[in-house]
Amino acid sequence: MQGSYFEDLQVGQQATIAKTVTEADILLFSAVTMDTNPMHLNAEVAAAGFFGERVAHGMLTAGLISAVLGTRLPGPGAVYMSQSLRFTAPVRIGVTVHAMAEVIELIPEKKRARLRTWCTVADAIVVEGEALVMVPGRG
Amino acid sequence: MQGSYFEDLQVGQQATIAKTVTEADILLFSAVTMDTNPMHLNAEVAAAGFFGERVAHGMLTAGLISAVLGTRLPGPGAVYMSQSLRFTAPVRIGVTVHAMAEVIELIPEKKRARLRTWCTVADAIVVEGEALVMVPGRG
Amino acid sequence: MQGSYFEDLQVGQQATIAKTVTEADILLFSAVTMDTNPMHLNAEVAAAGFFGERVAHGMLTAGLISAVLGTRLPGPGAVYMSQSLRFTAPVRIGVTVHAMAEVIELIPEKKRARLRTWCTVADAIVVEGEALVMVPGRG
Amino acid sequence: MQGSYFEDLQVGQQATIAKTVTEADILLFSAVTMDTNPMHLNAEVAAAGFFGERVAHGMLTAGLISAVLGTRLPGPGAVYMSQSLRFTAPVRIGVTVHAMAEVIELIPEKKRARLRTWCTVADAIVVEGEALVMVPGRG
Repeated sequence: MQGSYFEDLQVGQQATIAKTVTEADILLFSAVTMDTNPMHLNAEVAAAGFFGERVAHGMLTAGLISAVLGTRLPGPGAVYMSQSLRFTAPVRIGVTVHAMAEVIELIPEKKRARLRTWCTVADAIVVEGEALVMVPGRG
Repeated sequence: MQGSYFEDLQVGQQATIAKTVTEADILLFSAVTMDTNPMHLNAEVAAAGFFGERVAHGMLTAGLISAVLGTRLPGPGAVYMSQSLRFTAPVRIGVTVHAMAEVIELIPEKKRARLRTWCTVADAIVVEGEALVMVPGRG
Repeated sequence: MQGSYFEDLQVGQQATIAKTVTEADILLFSAVTMDTNPMHLNAEVAAAGFFGERVAHGMLTAGLISAVLGTRLPGPGAVYMSQSLRFTAPVRIGVTVHAMAEVIELIPEKKRARLRTWCTVADAIVVEGEALVMVPGRG
Repeated sequence: MQGSYFEDLQVGQQATIAKTVTEADILLFSAVTMDTNPMHLNAEVAAAGFFGERVAHGMLTAGLISAVLGTRLPGPGAVYMSQSLRFTAPVRIGVTVHAMAEVIELIPEKKRARLRTWCTVADAIVVEGEALVMVPGRG
């Protein structure tokens, strides 16, 4: 139930999580967030739109970054402070998204860690950015 | 089904959306993202943790920013390019989150709009940052 | 709202319930149970795994046995005491599972009924076992 | 994405997972399984029933055993062969269920592991039984 302590982290550490994005995911994400944009829920409108078909919410994909941080690296106990996100490619229904995190900076005086965070589909980046988390110490 | 065209946007324009965050939202968000961090799903662990009780995923709250951008301002048709997020306070079960967006910059040559985005609970900011979106033109 | 009383039951009585298993079922079952095993949620991992594609959780299928007992035979009012389960074949997305129960023993002094319970897909057994339930008497 | 290999397992190894059971869990479990027994969904009927209030489906609690086996011990890659379950106490809304598994027998010639499996609420057992899983070998 406890993830890494600050003292356990090292620059270069990585973790990953992956999941297939289904129609049900998109429906439930829209329910939770009220983001009922037709590009996600309306196949007719989406077919005529920028991506030519329904795509997942960018923030749904970003949610997998939250998952890799919250369950793997640093894992439970860390507190999410900030996240930047660039949405670089659409995520279509049925693809498998891989979310990755890598420790790129450790700030001992504040027990904070900066991580590079990115998501891929078939090895192509679809979301990228950086996260800052506060990590409990062993002391 | 079509939101604002780029030519319709003005600096200072605002929009808002709001929703009560329930246990069901947290459960479904964890399903969609696989973020099963016990701070969201385990009342015993959360009681002993940083916030003293279960809280919503920060990225769930951020999803309401996606909703205000995707359904209100600019609304359907816009493409999400980037988002920064600072998580400044926890969102507890049962509170109502208000997500707000305000146009702060228009970039006509690229048809992009920059918006200040923030979420509040009882008028206190819980998430804040900026979004960049590409907005279709009338032409 | 009341199922069979103990006195109404006879050895050999049968009941059934059936449902198509969808991606949404698997997603929601994973949320409720936290069983995020990639064999259920990650099409890439599942393709390389034992069954060659995503399959439903065995316990999801077993949940239909709970449904036939709790809603049909004996139905509401009975209390679930025990269940054995053998998972004999995978349940793939999109198939229709039939859950069956048949009374095989009645124990009047304790008002308990033993049932054979099994689930099929296209007439092939996918789960089988026995249930023991306590059934209210008319008295 | 790969759990323990058969060669990594030892008799006595344990793992656990825990989750607070909410109304939303009960609703979604009933949706997935069609177990709409009023003891789970109807507060009026449940108030007059055996437990005096709505309780979670026994098989929902059992689903957490599936989670500890499928995500922790042995984890991904293992195949569920059988499970016995005795439902010994009700699980009320809002309690936190802990599911535990302990390896009690290893069968090298068939690469199978037998585990004691049980769930507790506030240290009292609510479900108990045994699981048999087939675990991939390193070779």
